[in-house]
Amino acid sequence: MGCQGIYKSNNNKMEQKGFTLWFTGLSGAGKTTIAQRVEQTLRERGFKVELLDGDVVRTNLSKGLGFSKEDRDTNIKRIGFVCKLLTRNGVIAIASAISPYREVRDYNRQQIGDFVEVFVKCPLEICIQRDVKGLYQKALAGEIKNYTGVSDPYEEPLNPEIIVETDRESVEESTAKILAKLTELGYLPDLSESHSQLVEEGEAEDIYSQEEEEKIKQRLRDLGYI
Amino acid sequence: MGCQGIYKSNNNKMEQKGFTLWFTGLSGAGKTTIAQRVEQTLRERGFKVELLDGDVVRTNLSKGLGFSKEDRDTNIKRIGFVCKLLTRNGVIAIASAISPYREVRDYNRQQIGDFVEVFVKCPLEICIQRDVKGLYQKALAGEIKNYTGVSDPYEEPLNPEIIVETDRESVEESTAKILAKLTELGYLPDLSESHSQLVEEGEAEDIYSQEEEEKIKQRLRDLGYI
Repeated sequence: MGCQGIYKSNNNKMEQKGFTLWFTGLSGAGKTTIAQRVEQTLRERGFKVELLDGDVVRTNLSKGLGFSKEDRDTNIKRIGFVCKLLTRNGVIAIASAISPYREVRDYNRQQIGDFVEVFVKCPLEICIQRDVKGLYQKALAGEIKNYTGVSDPYEEPLNPEIIVETDRESVEESTAKILAKLTELGYLPDLSESHSQLVEEGEAEDIYSQEEEEKIKQRLRDLGYI
Repeated sequence: MGCQGIYKSNNNKMEQKGFTLWFTGLSGAGKTTIAQRVEQTLRERGFKVELLDGDVVRTNLSKGLGFSKEDRDTNIKRIGFVCKLLTRNGVIAIASAISPYREVRDYNRQQIGDFVEVFVKCPLEICIQRDVKGLYQKALAGEIKNYTGVSDPYEEPLNPEIIVETDRESVEESTAKILAKLTELGYLPDLSESHSQLVEEGEAEDIYSQEEEEKIKQRLRDLGYI
């Protein structure tokens, strides 16, 4: 009997483990691009995933909020609240938001528990060069206030689980790094070893067909992490 | 292999079907009481459930919103957005909110798809007599503005899936009515008949142990709906 996206957890029940993958970093650092790639990969592997993107969420959850510290914190807590509901119901919640303040990120970490922080690191100069949305130029010209990195602070995470450096890594490399770390942390099944063994020993269900598993392994090889 | 709260769905995979159970009605009609009882019953049966209570949600999702039509609509859409995320990930989302405007309830129905509306019907006089929060008195004295039923409209649902009448039914009766309708609509497995048959015929997994199933059946008998 095949179920997708579930694996044998410690308490001996078949279930998908929910967790929150929180992307933080400057505007233009590449959060959304990588978050979308991770989302797509996990979805293809059969996991339940929801991506809460800061920009998108501002229309659904946070209409009316501005960019003062207080409003930013409210926005980030609100995204955190939704991530918590998803996480405790076995969904992988991916949040992608500048979330410049350390304290509120740590508040979410504490509220959610299963929380993996990804610092999308990229020098400000490079983000300004990229200026994907054309907003850095306006911020530098003083036309936009409270712009993170220009006229508003960005507090780097002190102990993020994962750092990706988008000025030196390709999107594929960053994605592979994240998936490898999630596997190491036990949030994703290790397809390269333990799963096949468990199936042979009759201790795990054959979650994927052999063909599917081969496809997944090939993808992991392509991504360079097995 | 036992999995809780999942059953054989049409597409032949074992999964819990997500849906949104939306309670609407006047303040004091009994929405939260019944919603909590339904939540508890479903949780005991092993389902993944989240209850989004209007009053509670106002601190987590809707801080800063007032009670104008626009703010009420924003609040209800926001709850609906979270219900949608939970529903499409196989969770039973229960919303309990006055949600006085028909149009925005129907908007949520359309957005969510698997949407079951429960009209918690109770004459205004009875709600005023109960006055659980002591707010009707203040509203009638003109101390609170925009109070639904007193100085703000309540638009009854035209075709709710379920109507419970809390001036005539006990909480247990209303709960049983709701569970029966959810079973009839195919959102909950019919434990009284088809499940045991399917197991015997080898077409369904034995989701519950015999002992568990007997316990559940007894509860359903107690509730008076098998």
